[in-house]
Amino acid sequence: MQGTMIYGPRDIRFEDRPEPTITKPTDAIIRLSATCICGSDLWPYRGLQPIAQPTPMGHEYCGTVEEVGRDVRYIKPGQFVVGSFATSDNTCVICKDGYQSSCVHREFMSTAQAPLLRVPLADGTLVATSDLPPKEMIPSLLATSDVLGTGWFAADAANVKPGATVAVVGDGAVGLLGVLSAKQMGAKRIIAMSRHASRQKLAREFGATDIVTERGDDGVARIKELTDGIGANSVLECVGTQESMMQAIRSARPGGFVSYVGVPHGVSLDGEQLFFAHVHLHGGPAPVRRYLPKLIKLVLDGKINPGKVFDLTLPLDQVAEGYRAMDERRAIKTLLQP
Amino acid sequence: MQGTMIYGPRDIRFEDRPEPTITKPTDAIIRLSATCICGSDLWPYRGLQPIAQPTPMGHEYCGTVEEVGRDVRYIKPGQFVVGSFATSDNTCVICKDGYQSSCVHREFMSTAQAPLLRVPLADGTLVATSDLPPKEMIPSLLATSDVLGTGWFAADAANVKPGATVAVVGDGAVGLLGVLSAKQMGAKRIIAMSRHASRQKLAREFGATDIVTERGDDGVARIKELTDGIGANSVLECVGTQESMMQAIRSARPGGFVSYVGVPHGVSLDGEQLFFAHVHLHGGPAPVRRYLPKLIKLVLDGKINPGKVFDLTLPLDQVAEGYRAMDERRAIKTLLQP
Repeated sequence: MQGTMIYGPRDIRFEDRPEPTITKPTDAIIRLSATCICGSDLWPYRGLQPIAQPTPMGHEYCGTVEEVGRDVRYIKPGQFVVGSFATSDNTCVICKDGYQSSCVHREFMSTAQAPLLRVPLADGTLVATSDLPPKEMIPSLLATSDVLGTGWFAADAANVKPGATVAVVGDGAVGLLGVLSAKQMGAKRIIAMSRHASRQKLAREFGATDIVTERGDDGVARIKELTDGIGANSVLECVGTQESMMQAIRSARPGGFVSYVGVPHGVSLDGEQLFFAHVHLHGGPAPVRRYLPKLIKLVLDGKINPGKVFDLTLPLDQVAEGYRAMDERRAIKTLLQP
Repeated sequence: MQGTMIYGPRDIRFEDRPEPTITKPTDAIIRLSATCICGSDLWPYRGLQPIAQPTPMGHEYCGTVEEVGRDVRYIKPGQFVVGSFATSDNTCVICKDGYQSSCVHREFMSTAQAPLLRVPLADGTLVATSDLPPKEMIPSLLATSDVLGTGWFAADAANVKPGATVAVVGDGAVGLLGVLSAKQMGAKRIIAMSRHASRQKLAREFGATDIVTERGDDGVARIKELTDGIGANSVLECVGTQESMMQAIRSARPGGFVSYVGVPHGVSLDGEQLFFAHVHLHGGPAPVRRYLPKLIKLVLDGKINPGKVFDLTLPLDQVAEGYRAMDERRAIKTLLQP
């Protein structure tokens, strides 16, 4: 088969790769219905994260089970499944606490931009639907695998409650789906920070009530203006830079909640500033597996349509163009069809 | 009257000061039954926090109301009252959320190591008892004013729940009362980190089930050993240094909770490390006012005896010796009698 590799900054190649096989008795092999490019894939693509050697890419996936190892008990060949970017046994203490993305047996998926994928710990990582879903639901089901699960975690970790005022820093696909998630959780007012017309439009479609185009000090001042001078109850930080993190912390009211869900790059938090901000701070790799059954059901019931974040669809072999389009912000998120 | 001033590192003077008077109609003047020295007073005492000019000291207090301003409606002369180190109107949105120490009208108290004290926003800051309390309860009532309220916030902010495994970093008075608070909240296992015999003894009396004497990497490793390799559910950081903060964050399990309640000095948190630690982080100036009614009741009902942290009692005019004893760790905490 052919799969996606990164060789260096802006050097994505779709090339011959060995077909995955069952290597552990808890593995499954799935044939992907769709895969996609993540905002986090742009860190190495842009040279902001070192690439020691040619490395396979991709960690968002859904598809049909081809084969399972001899110890796999619940996942069956022929089923349609969605999995998380982090594998989990779903039985350890950490998993039982709902933090499957820090499972004691976690591995990070990294070869999903390909037609076939080996998924370790299949029973604890994958969630199967009862029937094969209609084709038009594939983008939204694919979204649950990471980008929606991560946006949902952002809203959950920021303690979004019915009636809350929520601010979302970042208008990438995760931020936009943070808006959708906050709306689902009953937020009354959702302030999206964005300066791109197409993203503002989608944010409004997903439930944003206000748009703030300012950034930094001006962005914080604008949020304060919109919240009687005190700041938001919940702020979702969906970027991962020093500026976005401080903007999020300063936009929350004392006693409020700030979540952060993208790997921070070069972020350093001053203890004293954080102390007097008086906020709750929670983040980390989203425990998507915790949310998958609920999110898949919301999609299949037609309650949400997170697949709208895919504004570019390409054949998998044009993956390099998919990266370019996202890097240049011509696309919010690229779906790839094997 | 005479009151306490700091002139520079290790230069505490008890000297003539103007008697406080009502300066705003919402003020009260109280005659102190007792006051004390806070661990945080040692930062400027040790020269670790700049002292621009001779500055009055003290922010922990309880006593009898002498006089109130014309807009004070609930606090009456003759009542015994306890207040927080932070004043609050107790009516703003932030106060209603339980974050009175970030009240929009907050002032920090700073002249309480004296016989008489002006308390701004008396109605929102002070809590009165229904009767004058017996003299032997004064130390424990004084403790509610800050050190217990702060230890309680540490446990609350670290989400201590019945059955939880809790670690406490710091064996100062706040850490020790963090142990007491965790015990009151139903923690099953409470690991106190301490290498001082007298403090270990008090920790055990307050409810600690385990003592860890190691620090840094070794301390973290020991906590992991005691928790099946995964870390504590809740960790209370009660010191405020880089080392103690990182020890706390690394001692918590993924999905666990870390609180920090002392002003961090020179603390900087790496975003990526925090992200993968996957913890909840919450701290700031303890909203003591939120807890005062409950804590005062626990003391008056004889359920808790937080006054045990005062292992040195001095006449107020020997305040300088009180600082020396705490600086040299001869005393955990010094109570001062006007």
